[in-house]
Amino acid sequence: MSRRVLVTGATGFVGRNALAPLLARGFEVHAVSSRAPLTDAPGAVRWHRADLLDGTAREALVADVAPTDLLHLAWYAEPGRFWRSPENLRWAAASVELLRAFAQAGGRRAALAGTCAEYAWESETHCVEGRTPLEPATLYGAAKHALRIVAEAFAAEVGLSLAWGRIFFLYGPHEDPRRLVSSVAQALVAGRVAETSHGEQVRDFLYAPELADAFAAVLDSEVTGAVNVASGQPVRLRELVVAVAAAAGRPDLLALGARPANPSEPDVLTADVTRLRDEVGWRPALTLEEGVERTVRWWREADAAQG
Amino acid sequence: MSRRVLVTGATGFVGRNALAPLLARGFEVHAVSSRAPLTDAPGAVRWHRADLLDGTAREALVADVAPTDLLHLAWYAEPGRFWRSPENLRWAAASVELLRAFAQAGGRRAALAGTCAEYAWESETHCVEGRTPLEPATLYGAAKHALRIVAEAFAAEVGLSLAWGRIFFLYGPHEDPRRLVSSVAQALVAGRVAETSHGEQVRDFLYAPELADAFAAVLDSEVTGAVNVASGQPVRLRELVVAVAAAAGRPDLLALGARPANPSEPDVLTADVTRLRDEVGWRPALTLEEGVERTVRWWREADAAQG
Repeated sequence: MSRRVLVTGATGFVGRNALAPLLARGFEVHAVSSRAPLTDAPGAVRWHRADLLDGTAREALVADVAPTDLLHLAWYAEPGRFWRSPENLRWAAASVELLRAFAQAGGRRAALAGTCAEYAWESETHCVEGRTPLEPATLYGAAKHALRIVAEAFAAEVGLSLAWGRIFFLYGPHEDPRRLVSSVAQALVAGRVAETSHGEQVRDFLYAPELADAFAAVLDSEVTGAVNVASGQPVRLRELVVAVAAAAGRPDLLALGARPANPSEPDVLTADVTRLRDEVGWRPALTLEEGVERTVRWWREADAAQG
Repeated sequence: MSRRVLVTGATGFVGRNALAPLLARGFEVHAVSSRAPLTDAPGAVRWHRADLLDGTAREALVADVAPTDLLHLAWYAEPGRFWRSPENLRWAAASVELLRAFAQAGGRRAALAGTCAEYAWESETHCVEGRTPLEPATLYGAAKHALRIVAEAFAAEVGLSLAWGRIFFLYGPHEDPRRLVSSVAQALVAGRVAETSHGEQVRDFLYAPELADAFAAVLDSEVTGAVNVASGQPVRLRELVVAVAAAAGRPDLLALGARPANPSEPDVLTADVTRLRDEVGWRPALTLEEGVERTVRWWREADAAQG
């Protein structure tokens, strides 16, 4: 049977990169976004413009596309605000209703975006699915946690195959310029100083196009339940931003330690990727240096295009 | 400050009984239901007719009433079906959005209906808030569990005072005739045989008007988080239905053990009511026999009215 996937958040930082891998796997790809279609997306992608927070539009979209598969990436993601915003409630509610409509329209397989913020963050946390306690400290994490609970119970009830991919830390082209790698890269290619914290924090970082490729692999697998979708290659933030500075050719402009670190953030937050590697069969193809190099090149081109 | 409460599910089995206790506590009571107003409700109640699953109607209602308090009892409750129905997703989503709208319209205090089905049901389970594991075995329980998680995180974020009342087992006037006490009472007052299981199961049963009174007390208290709203007086189902038969004057028509018990249901499922008793200051006023007597009288009058 041919598979028709509905990709939500398709113009976003992750979603935009999921379209080509899904096409490559043989899916008929239906992309939905509240924004205009991407001009640089593969021509085979079929675009739908809809606000998923609008119930009527959401139901009409699902009825119209009648997808067999769902890759649900859309969410409120405004940097700085998304942790605590009431928008998390709107997206949790809309996601529950989207999943219900999808299953009732005949959908069979879904992959939804979860987050490492579902886990209890101790000062040093290595996150293992099914073992590390789920105790979100933020409204964003709680909304995702709640969505997973009801989504998995619903999937079990109606015989829907459902995977829940927990995203860790990302970088790459098109990242919101207020985030770590994007802000450092943007400053350095523009010849400005980039101030960061001490950078001793250890995180799992993944190049966003690789995350999207991994989500396509998760959807195309039969894995169910929670799966960490991460590199499995922890890095110290210091190493990461030093790599950015090296790629930008401006290590002189990197002011490590110029800003205070957020004391509420864990020292170490890493992902166990055994499930992703052994059950989905996915692992990153790029080194951190390669991903950073591509990212910095993108920011350089963006900077040049801006004049 | 005067308090204006919005009561959802106000024509339901529980909600209809909450109106008078809330008025007695000095609340301005706004009752909402998708059905017609109750003709026998206190005259001071202000009725609103709206389908809470309709986002536009829901937002308009909250804006119109601008409640300071919310008593959210509405949910899908079709006997036999509610455990597994996708309607649970619609109500979870609508409840999340209702709570958000309520807080954004200036709401300060909310009490929401949870369920004993949020707890992990072992064969013998005494449910204690904050101690008994939360591991719902049903979609209904999972949907309520998920709602609580996001509701509590949201409340903490925006400074809303929120109580989550977990309901156990109920009986009383107006109960759906397909449920235990109602079906037995209805059969016996009509002179028909009532078949039940062996009746060795132990449960916490509460007279629905008392549950509603307890919810009014919970709302009117400052208790936050999960509170079991139950009698604290476990009863064997056998004793309960024998009491019904005695009140109906037809012990001869009670066929205990004529039906198989559901093997997936726990032998013992009871509520710890320490929080309700000590922190809310509520305890039942009626004995089981008194509640059963009133219930049977109501069924007798309903039977007589039907001719």
